[in-house]
Amino acid sequence: MNHVIKTLEKRVSLRRYKDLDIREEDLETILKSAMKAPTAGNMQLYSIIVIKDEETKKKLSRTCDNQDFIAKAPIILLFLADMQRWFDYYDYCNVKKMCEEKDIVYNGPEEADLFLACSDALIAAQNAVIAAESLEIGSCYIGDIMENYEIHREIFGLPKWTFPIALLPMGYYPEDFERVHRERFGIRYIVFDEKYKRLKKEDFEEMFKNRGHMDYDKLNVENFGQFMYFQKTGADFSIEMARSVKKALENWKGEIL
Amino acid sequence: MNHVIKTLEKRVSLRRYKDLDIREEDLETILKSAMKAPTAGNMQLYSIIVIKDEETKKKLSRTCDNQDFIAKAPIILLFLADMQRWFDYYDYCNVKKMCEEKDIVYNGPEEADLFLACSDALIAAQNAVIAAESLEIGSCYIGDIMENYEIHREIFGLPKWTFPIALLPMGYYPEDFERVHRERFGIRYIVFDEKYKRLKKEDFEEMFKNRGHMDYDKLNVENFGQFMYFQKTGADFSIEMARSVKKALENWKGEIL
Repeated sequence: MNHVIKTLEKRVSLRRYKDLDIREEDLETILKSAMKAPTAGNMQLYSIIVIKDEETKKKLSRTCDNQDFIAKAPIILLFLADMQRWFDYYDYCNVKKMCEEKDIVYNGPEEADLFLACSDALIAAQNAVIAAESLEIGSCYIGDIMENYEIHREIFGLPKWTFPIALLPMGYYPEDFERVHRERFGIRYIVFDEKYKRLKKEDFEEMFKNRGHMDYDKLNVENFGQFMYFQKTGADFSIEMARSVKKALENWKGEIL
Repeated sequence: MNHVIKTLEKRVSLRRYKDLDIREEDLETILKSAMKAPTAGNMQLYSIIVIKDEETKKKLSRTCDNQDFIAKAPIILLFLADMQRWFDYYDYCNVKKMCEEKDIVYNGPEEADLFLACSDALIAAQNAVIAAESLEIGSCYIGDIMENYEIHREIFGLPKWTFPIALLPMGYYPEDFERVHRERFGIRYIVFDEKYKRLKKEDFEEMFKNRGHMDYDKLNVENFGQFMYFQKTGADFSIEMARSVKKALENWKGEIL
């Protein structure tokens, strides 16, 4: 197993940190690694906001489903899907005039542009995560950054063709930290040959046999699936995320410019 | 610079391959690294389809904006955002009954679930890319997999709550391969402190000074921005991608189950 694979293997999500600021040279390495990530058409359809301000961290720890540890991270990186920069550049380049002359439609970004820009942002974010890990800096993805769209726009001054897709609080691993690796599903339930495979009753029984086993009576559910729907997919934070993303998507309808 | 950072640094997109099948142990390492990636709530909201079939590769080289090299890759990995598996599991766990009893809404996945599942899929995909790179296996993201949604559903037998977000043709670097690193934008145009920064005329002049410089007259455009809109953002493949993604999104409206 080479050193890179080992680094991918050993990473766990980190939610408490050594009491030490991120060294500037480490931050620089992380950001450069992010920017080296593959990007559609070499367009870098993302931006990264570096957050050190304590007030902002505190706000995020509230707006991202009340997770206190977020406020305690020495540094937080916010990855934005960003089509704004290119459309500002298109404006500067008078693309509208070209489109009129060529009789082609000049329209603002659409949902697909958002997915493409999110892809760029997430690929860059994962490069940042791995670079950080190689420097003994841990991280944790906060998907809840997709909630409270309006508040996050306000906090970071986000124009309408940007979207916050990944939030990464980061800090050095504490010295006494014991890595607990959460077991993944069996590979045969995730990886398929040539075609998608719908799973059946027997698959689920085997696939989930090491999951759950909590006191379902106490939780007032019957099984792990009910527990997960109640705690995750159907929970309040998911309802807020659904609302927030719908709101954000209103800006990505390809309006004629 | 440690070995991990060096690996992130040296990667380039690879579009031609050594004439050598991917060794099974390398493929296994790549897939395991993908599955080790961080995932929301340890739910693994993605699936990976391993494509070796020549006919399928050929089809993809056509449906993904006619890129011949796709058909020549020894192996192709397709990363799907996948909420289907969990909703099939919820069905198996009789979540509907629990929701009725608790008087909470039981609804299918929404746009936000798709973004969350795409995040999981892309984070896993980038782990695969980096693991591959460490094994001298190159890759290239094909965003065009978001086009032709209906055809790709048909080819891979995709149920409605999956979405193909990343396609990765992979193969060993050829021995004579010379890595050409495409220059990224200056960090100050991509990374911001605390708040988003809208770029201005002067920024764009500086930011793009090393880009373009082609014969714009011949291309019948005036500048690089016009060229990029014409070639990328406003091109036919983008129009198809916009249509295709809108079509896919119809399945992610949170229908009541």
